[in-house]
Amino acid sequence: MAVDIRPAAVQKVKKDAAEHDHVLKTFRLLISDLCQQYNGGHPGGAIGMAAIGIALWKYVMRYAPHNPDYFNRDRFVLSNGHTCLFQYSFLHLTGYKAMTFEQLKSYHSDRVDALCPGHPEIEHEGIEVTTGPLGQGIANAVGLAIATKNLQAHFNKPGYNVVSNHTWCMIGDACLQEGVGLEAISLAGHLRLDNLTVIYDNNQITCDGSVDLTSSEDVNAKMRACGWNVIDVEDGCYDIAGIVAALEEARSPNAKQPTFINVRTVIGIGSAVEGTAAAHGAAFGHANVAAMKTAYGFNPEEHFVIGDRVRAFFEELPTRGENLIKEWKELLAQYNAEYPDLGAELASRIKGELLADWNKLIPESFPDKPTATRAASGMVINPIAKEVKNFMVGTADLSPSVNMIWPGKVDFQHPDLRTTCGINGNYSGRYLHYGVREHAMCAISNGIAAYSPGTFIPITSTFFMFYLYAAPAVRMGALQHLQVIHAATHDSIGMGEDGPTHQPIELAALYRAMPNILYIRPGDSEETAGAWITAINAKNTPTIISTSRQALPQLRQTSRDKVAYGAYVLEEAENASVTLLGVGAELSFAVDVAAQLNEKHGIIARVVSFPCQRLFEKQSLEYKRETLKRGSIPAVIIEPYAPQGWERYANAGICLSRFGHSLPGKAAYKYFGYDIGVMTEKIFKYLAQLKEEEILLHEFSEL
Amino acid sequence: MAVDIRPAAVQKVKKDAAEHDHVLKTFRLLISDLCQQYNGGHPGGAIGMAAIGIALWKYVMRYAPHNPDYFNRDRFVLSNGHTCLFQYSFLHLTGYKAMTFEQLKSYHSDRVDALCPGHPEIEHEGIEVTTGPLGQGIANAVGLAIATKNLQAHFNKPGYNVVSNHTWCMIGDACLQEGVGLEAISLAGHLRLDNLTVIYDNNQITCDGSVDLTSSEDVNAKMRACGWNVIDVEDGCYDIAGIVAALEEARSPNAKQPTFINVRTVIGIGSAVEGTAAAHGAAFGHANVAAMKTAYGFNPEEHFVIGDRVRAFFEELPTRGENLIKEWKELLAQYNAEYPDLGAELASRIKGELLADWNKLIPESFPDKPTATRAASGMVINPIAKEVKNFMVGTADLSPSVNMIWPGKVDFQHPDLRTTCGINGNYSGRYLHYGVREHAMCAISNGIAAYSPGTFIPITSTFFMFYLYAAPAVRMGALQHLQVIHAATHDSIGMGEDGPTHQPIELAALYRAMPNILYIRPGDSEETAGAWITAINAKNTPTIISTSRQALPQLRQTSRDKVAYGAYVLEEAENASVTLLGVGAELSFAVDVAAQLNEKHGIIARVVSFPCQRLFEKQSLEYKRETLKRGSIPAVIIEPYAPQGWERYANAGICLSRFGHSLPGKAAYKYFGYDIGVMTEKIFKYLAQLKEEEILLHEFSEL
Repeated sequence: MAVDIRPAAVQKVKKDAAEHDHVLKTFRLLISDLCQQYNGGHPGGAIGMAAIGIALWKYVMRYAPHNPDYFNRDRFVLSNGHTCLFQYSFLHLTGYKAMTFEQLKSYHSDRVDALCPGHPEIEHEGIEVTTGPLGQGIANAVGLAIATKNLQAHFNKPGYNVVSNHTWCMIGDACLQEGVGLEAISLAGHLRLDNLTVIYDNNQITCDGSVDLTSSEDVNAKMRACGWNVIDVEDGCYDIAGIVAALEEARSPNAKQPTFINVRTVIGIGSAVEGTAAAHGAAFGHANVAAMKTAYGFNPEEHFVIGDRVRAFFEELPTRGENLIKEWKELLAQYNAEYPDLGAELASRIKGELLADWNKLIPESFPDKPTATRAASGMVINPIAKEVKNFMVGTADLSPSVNMIWPGKVDFQHPDLRTTCGINGNYSGRYLHYGVREHAMCAISNGIAAYSPGTFIPITSTFFMFYLYAAPAVRMGALQHLQVIHAATHDSIGMGEDGPTHQPIELAALYRAMPNILYIRPGDSEETAGAWITAINAKNTPTIISTSRQALPQLRQTSRDKVAYGAYVLEEAENASVTLLGVGAELSFAVDVAAQLNEKHGIIARVVSFPCQRLFEKQSLEYKRETLKRGSIPAVIIEPYAPQGWERYANAGICLSRFGHSLPGKAAYKYFGYDIGVMTEKIFKYLAQLKEEEILLHEFSEL
Repeated sequence: MAVDIRPAAVQKVKKDAAEHDHVLKTFRLLISDLCQQYNGGHPGGAIGMAAIGIALWKYVMRYAPHNPDYFNRDRFVLSNGHTCLFQYSFLHLTGYKAMTFEQLKSYHSDRVDALCPGHPEIEHEGIEVTTGPLGQGIANAVGLAIATKNLQAHFNKPGYNVVSNHTWCMIGDACLQEGVGLEAISLAGHLRLDNLTVIYDNNQITCDGSVDLTSSEDVNAKMRACGWNVIDVEDGCYDIAGIVAALEEARSPNAKQPTFINVRTVIGIGSAVEGTAAAHGAAFGHANVAAMKTAYGFNPEEHFVIGDRVRAFFEELPTRGENLIKEWKELLAQYNAEYPDLGAELASRIKGELLADWNKLIPESFPDKPTATRAASGMVINPIAKEVKNFMVGTADLSPSVNMIWPGKVDFQHPDLRTTCGINGNYSGRYLHYGVREHAMCAISNGIAAYSPGTFIPITSTFFMFYLYAAPAVRMGALQHLQVIHAATHDSIGMGEDGPTHQPIELAALYRAMPNILYIRPGDSEETAGAWITAINAKNTPTIISTSRQALPQLRQTSRDKVAYGAYVLEEAENASVTLLGVGAELSFAVDVAAQLNEKHGIIARVVSFPCQRLFEKQSLEYKRETLKRGSIPAVIIEPYAPQGWERYANAGICLSRFGHSLPGKAAYKYFGYDIGVMTEKIFKYLAQLKEEEILLHEFSEL
């Protein structure tokens, strides 16, 4: 394999060679001190990766410490997030302003506004994504690389590489064991993302000890089988020139695939516990740190020493960053002159704007016939996704079921695939076949969303039940305030004969409890429009739009606008003696039961449509009381899900506290008592028992 | 690679060759009819795999249709569970009694007691595990193979292979894309499970179309890199002899690794949609099925035809099965004579019995000093796990944190690893290093538990937060009523500085809502003993024991026995004006707040310890009312988790409806207001507001 080292980088590394040893030692002692200070943290990995960090931040990565959000910056992801001191220390050394020396020293302290949490967090300067749960970062990096590719295919023109950033991702042994990492690796190889480089801190140590305990793989062969270019670096602790050469080769136009750089390192090198699991997750101990300092020729009495030589070594970087921005802006100015429309569009995307009037693309009304909300979902979003280039729509191999294809959609694929497989795809495509990889789909979507706020709004799609596979990534999106929209179809037992493995019973309880995410179950086409409008307006919050497989009746009183309230009165009634809470695929059941209660028993029921608990919680107390009227009459929720969470809004529920059953949808409803007559009698009996005080209002009753 | 076909198998295949074409056609038409009948289902895969099925059920697998639970039977797992008709049809043809022709024809019908659900279910004769969510089955198969290896290492003696079954697993393209499958594949290769064969139905079609859309891997190279033996079969639709040869090679003593048989098939072969995604998940249509029949020389007017030739082809199988059992029983009788102790032990394991008096191994009391419940957990279970061979304990690379190691524990590893890595392991070991593979850990544990009821009780361990990674497998364990115990440490924000990515806020809501699982948060060492006793007694239910990282005080009033009630009165008080619900790591907060409410404000509070909602729900109404006294006084829950679910038991909560924060544990508690003084004032104010009716009792208040 031809190594293409850019002369500039080579000269630079060689010229500085005399400084490297001192910088490495300083860095390693700094990490040791930072962990020792509060007697905790993860020193070993950061110390072992020191030379990699110097190669990246000093020689290879293109970024601007004084303008951390420079749009065309290289993205760096620390997938092995527990080694966060590695990143924090380089942010400090290279001149990120927020990362002061004081801040750096706050690692593991009680300081509540610290910028050095136990894992990197996206809110902080210079951090692209929050990592920590292993394997997520590598999938995020794949998403970042996809975002670049898509922008390049759409915006770049000959002579105008206005988008040219590379994505660098550090991983440890664990990211190669976690399923989500393996899914993402496989997809990245398929997509031939040559703008992605994964740097493997191959120290062969995990918490339990040697990786030999749990893995006997030929990692390089596995990566090659997945379509990756593989480069080995034997001495990852000291050979900065070798690392730089490998990184530059990975970024060179010769690379036609994503690159995996297998860098042999020694965890905690130079410490008394080097090369062992003991170096991983605990401070080395005062005596050991002192001994390290003595061995390195440093004063064992001094702590946190960053000498002038080290400061001088890094001091050029802010200026280099500003120059990069200047060059990019000049290029952009010429581009804007030559391609004014594209230039304006790019500027808009950079600002995170959507096409004005996107919401006018939504149908004003829907056919007045039974329609599955998964079908309504397509009617709402497909015209928008077609026109609004921010949307990157994906599916975990359920295209025929989730209805997210717009006429003329083009797949996001390597352009050569068209030739070999006749697929209508290239990198400007915005429909992403993720394969049966739900977890990676959502983690990659987080990366696409994290590229720059609003530049992309990723959409994922699969059956609702399989958002349990993806839950760790959905959570990371919520935690990071990333706008990702999850189109979850086949919700509730109404999805039918695929049976209990596919019927979500308890999953809504998770997403209703998860902070900063909207779980919306629209009841018909109109509410589906409302769900999408809410999701697209939720700039800092992911949304799950949970739709039915089966056709649902159109209800006259539903309102797209009122979905934003979370719950609203669908049928008001004076002198009502009960409120029925209806939601999603079963909303019409509540309406029908209310009618039958009146008809059969003369009982007047109000009906509230309740598509989203989280949105309702945001409403005023007055609105909540008006809607629920809980002080005066009981409320009953009808939903074939576990009742947990509904107890706040209802006194009783026709819910499910057991797993589902494999039956066609209608038969499944009937089997579990979701029959209008059966439900009517249950509620009638409940109200009678309440009157007789056989049942107490404050004790939630499962009917 | 030397092919070792047993002469008997070869002769048999050759002798029958004239029948194969007719049997294949009959099978394919049967599947087509079964899907056509209700115009649904998944015909294509089952049809494409017909020859594989004949190879397995007629020639290779060792099983007994009339004694489906024969202990030493080969295990068959259909990881691509949507092709369930494949398995159901072979169960019928080979003579499983429950699978009558009528039952077979109930596929996708409204029949509520059908044995042909949309995916195979463990409750039914001849089904080893419930599959459907893709990738789970392959991990289950790894677990089944581990169970066999462990029993063999412990029980088999020269000349006495009393346990000798093989595990066969069918997979489709999706199982090779799902992360959980990839994790399990990697571990199986590491463990060199030569008793496991994965048969890849390589039809290159998924729902979205060609696998080329989403994968460009060299699958065989990837499997080899993972330590698998790979065999190709080119004509998987017709070459029964080739498939049998491959299967026999996989089972032969020459195989030193797990074997991956890459069988090229054509989805829906013989139908009008053969080789396309249209064959995957929909019936072919009446006209197309009729055309298939005509082409095959069958009468297009006849349906569900299984002729005498086909019946005759399979009729020997029940007898062959009974002979297998007879031979095994004879072997066992000799073994019992020569090794009476082992014989008795094996008999006991087969019955699923534990060592008598296992509960006497639990300490009668615990040191009266602050102890993390994760440490107490080790004190309780390690002496049991050491002595009781049913326990197979695993960890996802958190051995130093989860405290599940007993003195002298031996790892479950290939014995040769000892030589190369100095690891104290062999197949009789019962401590399993799963690597950083939480999802596979739990799915594999399901397989170990499914081997035979009670023969193994698998234990998994990692941080509680990472049971979100494993949630789909934990769910499958609950759905299948498998006794798997999950030792989840580092629960609540008390785990500290690892930050919001590691602090579970909403996860308890999932597991409290999930049917048939116990989520138990013990409050001190005594309750930890109770949690383990409950979990070990729960023969048909998985349990999550959720413990603290940090030391907790020992509370005098806690009771191991009362944990089984789910909640119990810790501190009763006459004239109390509030009940405080305490749980887990924060139970002592409730006790301290009660004391301070009295001291500072003269308010008398009762305290209820509430380790498990699900267990409490099983108690009588009288017990519940006595414990909570909700009719008379308000209840306040103290738990730094999302409140969802607590509204049933409490009127107010000091809970968390946002993500956590990276701070040392004590500082994290303080930051979120879990300070005794702050909580005392919140509750005091709440009670005052209730009195003034500024707040209503029935409106759950987040304090």
